[in-house]
Amino acid sequence: MILDRIKAPNDIKKIKPDDYALLAQEIRSFLIKKISVTGGHLGSNLGTVELTMALHLCLNLPEDKIIFDVGHQSYTHKILTGRRDDFVTLRQYHGLSGFPKHRESDCDAFDTGHSSTSISAGLGLVKARDLKHEKNTVVSVIGDGALTGGMAYEALNNAAKLNTNYIIILNDNDRSISENVGGISKYLQGIRTAEGYQDFKIKLQKTLVKMPQGAQVVEGLKRYKSSIKQLFVPGMFFEDMGITYLGPVDGHDVNAMCKMINEAKRINHAVIIHVRTKKGRGYAPAERHPARFHGTEPFDIETGLPLKNKPKAAYTDVFSTVMIKLGSRNDRVCAISAAMPDGTGLTRFSKLYPDRFFDVGIAEEHAVTFAAGLSAGGMIPVVAIYSSFLQRAYDQILHDVCIQNLHVIFAIDRAGIVGADGETHQGIFDLSYLSSIPNMTVMAPKNKWELSDMLKFAVNMDSPVAIRYPRGEAYDGFADKREIVREGKCETLYDGKDVILLAVGSMVETAVEVREILKEKGIDAGMVNARFIKPIDEEMVKKAAEGNRLVVTMEENVYSGGFGSAVRTILDKEVPENRLINIAIPDEYVEHGNVDILKHDIGIDADSIVTKILDYIGI
Amino acid sequence: MILDRIKAPNDIKKIKPDDYALLAQEIRSFLIKKISVTGGHLGSNLGTVELTMALHLCLNLPEDKIIFDVGHQSYTHKILTGRRDDFVTLRQYHGLSGFPKHRESDCDAFDTGHSSTSISAGLGLVKARDLKHEKNTVVSVIGDGALTGGMAYEALNNAAKLNTNYIIILNDNDRSISENVGGISKYLQGIRTAEGYQDFKIKLQKTLVKMPQGAQVVEGLKRYKSSIKQLFVPGMFFEDMGITYLGPVDGHDVNAMCKMINEAKRINHAVIIHVRTKKGRGYAPAERHPARFHGTEPFDIETGLPLKNKPKAAYTDVFSTVMIKLGSRNDRVCAISAAMPDGTGLTRFSKLYPDRFFDVGIAEEHAVTFAAGLSAGGMIPVVAIYSSFLQRAYDQILHDVCIQNLHVIFAIDRAGIVGADGETHQGIFDLSYLSSIPNMTVMAPKNKWELSDMLKFAVNMDSPVAIRYPRGEAYDGFADKREIVREGKCETLYDGKDVILLAVGSMVETAVEVREILKEKGIDAGMVNARFIKPIDEEMVKKAAEGNRLVVTMEENVYSGGFGSAVRTILDKEVPENRLINIAIPDEYVEHGNVDILKHDIGIDADSIVTKILDYIGI
Repeated sequence: MILDRIKAPNDIKKIKPDDYALLAQEIRSFLIKKISVTGGHLGSNLGTVELTMALHLCLNLPEDKIIFDVGHQSYTHKILTGRRDDFVTLRQYHGLSGFPKHRESDCDAFDTGHSSTSISAGLGLVKARDLKHEKNTVVSVIGDGALTGGMAYEALNNAAKLNTNYIIILNDNDRSISENVGGISKYLQGIRTAEGYQDFKIKLQKTLVKMPQGAQVVEGLKRYKSSIKQLFVPGMFFEDMGITYLGPVDGHDVNAMCKMINEAKRINHAVIIHVRTKKGRGYAPAERHPARFHGTEPFDIETGLPLKNKPKAAYTDVFSTVMIKLGSRNDRVCAISAAMPDGTGLTRFSKLYPDRFFDVGIAEEHAVTFAAGLSAGGMIPVVAIYSSFLQRAYDQILHDVCIQNLHVIFAIDRAGIVGADGETHQGIFDLSYLSSIPNMTVMAPKNKWELSDMLKFAVNMDSPVAIRYPRGEAYDGFADKREIVREGKCETLYDGKDVILLAVGSMVETAVEVREILKEKGIDAGMVNARFIKPIDEEMVKKAAEGNRLVVTMEENVYSGGFGSAVRTILDKEVPENRLINIAIPDEYVEHGNVDILKHDIGIDADSIVTKILDYIGI
Repeated sequence: MILDRIKAPNDIKKIKPDDYALLAQEIRSFLIKKISVTGGHLGSNLGTVELTMALHLCLNLPEDKIIFDVGHQSYTHKILTGRRDDFVTLRQYHGLSGFPKHRESDCDAFDTGHSSTSISAGLGLVKARDLKHEKNTVVSVIGDGALTGGMAYEALNNAAKLNTNYIIILNDNDRSISENVGGISKYLQGIRTAEGYQDFKIKLQKTLVKMPQGAQVVEGLKRYKSSIKQLFVPGMFFEDMGITYLGPVDGHDVNAMCKMINEAKRINHAVIIHVRTKKGRGYAPAERHPARFHGTEPFDIETGLPLKNKPKAAYTDVFSTVMIKLGSRNDRVCAISAAMPDGTGLTRFSKLYPDRFFDVGIAEEHAVTFAAGLSAGGMIPVVAIYSSFLQRAYDQILHDVCIQNLHVIFAIDRAGIVGADGETHQGIFDLSYLSSIPNMTVMAPKNKWELSDMLKFAVNMDSPVAIRYPRGEAYDGFADKREIVREGKCETLYDGKDVILLAVGSMVETAVEVREILKEKGIDAGMVNARFIKPIDEEMVKKAAEGNRLVVTMEENVYSGGFGSAVRTILDKEVPENRLINIAIPDEYVEHGNVDILKHDIGIDADSIVTKILDYIGI
């Protein structure tokens, strides 16, 4: 295997050009084989094998810096920088991260995870380099999907001012996770088909030169140089801003890309290389189903089918079904996705109610203010965005929705510990950043039926409301407990004389376990499903602490500004002699890995909670 | 006066075209006169008098919707919708807001304040209109400065898909508050000078037609229609995206603008009208000093000079001076502003260290991740952004700076109650949204010397750190108390046996007052300057509560997730029999008005605090 000769950064330079194609093939086989076992991001990595090879051939790592936007396409980069053997631990606890991590290798210049940050970070590295009089090359690799994110434009606007080298690779596969939308996509489509311009340019010049008055026209053309350039140069918008545009180039032709990268390195300002790649390249199932193979569970290589059948409906599936019902019952209900109709479960809604479905691109900020506009216009928008991505729209929630007290519903999927994606994707701050916003209501369902009930409740409200629910299987316990949802009111599941477990959303399932273990130890624990994080049910909190009971709050969120903190405030004021334990995510980032392991590691699994309770009681 | 005939929306339509110029002049005189007394946004309003008149002439309010981006340029709109008499109360408590407010008039279609939201909101109103089969016209008015904000691009990208009418007015005055920067500015500059294209187009066509092979060339040109259009049509980027571009048009010519707006109303997709205006138009001092007259205090109309001399240095001035020192002592120190070098106090730094100063445009998200890149590259960036604007970069702080634990310093001006700008600009959430982020340190200085000491301390740290300080005069009490800043340690200012006031930043000054009043009543109150909100000084908090003393936390921030909440957590755990009062901003938005009145209204002024203490004690 050629791949065996690559053990450290820059080893790829020892490979002969004749062997590049074979190397690419070996990397692809390696990726498919490994990801079929561990799961991970497949399509984007298969699409960028040659691009990453070309970068490693033209650059010196770690002196030169590559910033991968989003970062899920950095697997080949990891292989080429000596981390091939670590792929058996990919995305597992204490194993190889699925994203660039500086702590993992100094070849990972900047950690990424959320979209559209790479040009901003790259510009920072460029300016630092110049101020320190260093000479390295900085390259940001950004997909066309990430170009729908506003931050990328803010950064391009600044890149345009550079008078020093900086290379942006536009990795254009015509997709985000789903298909791309909007004007930028159309603009790039125009560029892609612009190759014909070159022929036309040559013909026009030849024709003009032969003509009697041709010289005069050519003179005119020269005077309007920049506008004439638009005729012939694709990517004129970038050029107009002051950024040199090179391309488009075939993203599966290593030599062509190397030529262009080396050309780009000689330019004394920002330069965009437009690379055309195919997501899932080289693996038929991934080419055919790019959305499904964006991030995949373990799968069978032959068929491309998942190894495990999906055992139970996920919360996303429940949301998907309820949205269809809501859409059919009320024609004011709209749905908004930020480039993730599949991931958020809105694909079916989009097909049934295309006029009321909006995929805005990777543009969470716009998504939220657009929803505010819809609401101001009398519609009932449901904004479905993952917890960690909604952080992007914090100001829009606070400033555009909540000041005007607009009826916008936030369906927050992937709240709590998400597992394999790690630090950048854990949804562990939403209860805090949402609860401190005036006019906001924040809920979390205990099980799949309650998600449905809460969505219906939210549609009937007339103010901003967020419902957060976790990644993965929807809990189907308490099928018989379906008390009507009332504003600011909890639901008591079990009485108990020794301990009361106040659980938020997903922690109800954990509380069931905790209660069982405590029962075995002779401790009688009651259970309350909080339902509302804001407004909190003060009466319930006070009642929980009655009779000197130990109160235990349980939430998949940091403590500061969360549910437990609110409970503590009430109890400290109202029941000074309270006995209270707060189970929450500690004040630290949570890495990637199996959700159960992570929960144990940070002390929010049933065993850890029981231990804390027993410690407190002194047993 | 012609203006007297305008008492209600649409009254302007009764004015004869011959009188438009006079009306514009009267509105300008009115604005100058009123704002010279109350203070307010002058330059942007003087620049948009005719534009607003044209909109009101072409539209029917409130059926048609105008969304003013940022919204500080909506004064003429307020005059033309029957709110002229309210200008005596402009920006005062319970008076006329300086921004659009739907609660003030149904002619204010959508509330704004922060930049770059108007296209997103406008698109929402457009979609709601169409879904409800209504027929009104929706217009977003956005400045070229606001186009440096990424959200505007996210929205443009979506506007490009419309197949229904929607009008965007690009109000191009070549400025944000300060001068514009970057590629977009360059691009617009290109458009502005594009009038000559029309002549060239005609000449080229005439020449070609006369030629022997001209027909062939013309045929070729036609085949490449979209690319040829680039030759002649300015604003081609917008056109390429799918948005019709009209302009540029003189923004002080009412008839020309009306013609174009009426033309735009007939187009069945999104259309941009590029209007060129002059900020401060018609008032010489404002034309000469656009940054100073962006938002102005009361001034003398003759001279343009402020009526009050600035009595004391503001915190901004202190920051400005310290930054120069830091810049000279350490060449790794950089400074970043998001389009507000003047407002944040970085102008002097920018002149002394132009290579290490970066004005990134109205682009808070980029600013923060750019800083992260600088830090990853070995520099020490200081990001100076107002508290409420930094909300825009919440995810970038959390995701790009703090996960990597990068040494970025946030200098957060306008923290706490800012006064006249109202809800959208109050800086009352930063302690909460920053404290819940792992790895973050959060400080607030008690006086001007401490701001200096904290900045120096922050430069010597090696992790993310935020320093928040209020708008306006820097407190200069406790000149003799300058204890060295140590991580996570408070500063005790006075001992006291009955009460301990734990004050954050600006509240130290209030605590002095509270202490004096309590003393008169025979209550011995100690005082602690918290300094660190995170990490909090637990030892101090426990000590404060010793001897059954009443502890009073004081902060200009909401309670949830703030300082008082953290203190309560410690006391509830460690001193269950504690006596604690939390003084914080209530869970509601705080309107515009005089800061002292607002503080009294929400119960955080000295008198209100004393009352709460006496109530608690039972005196």
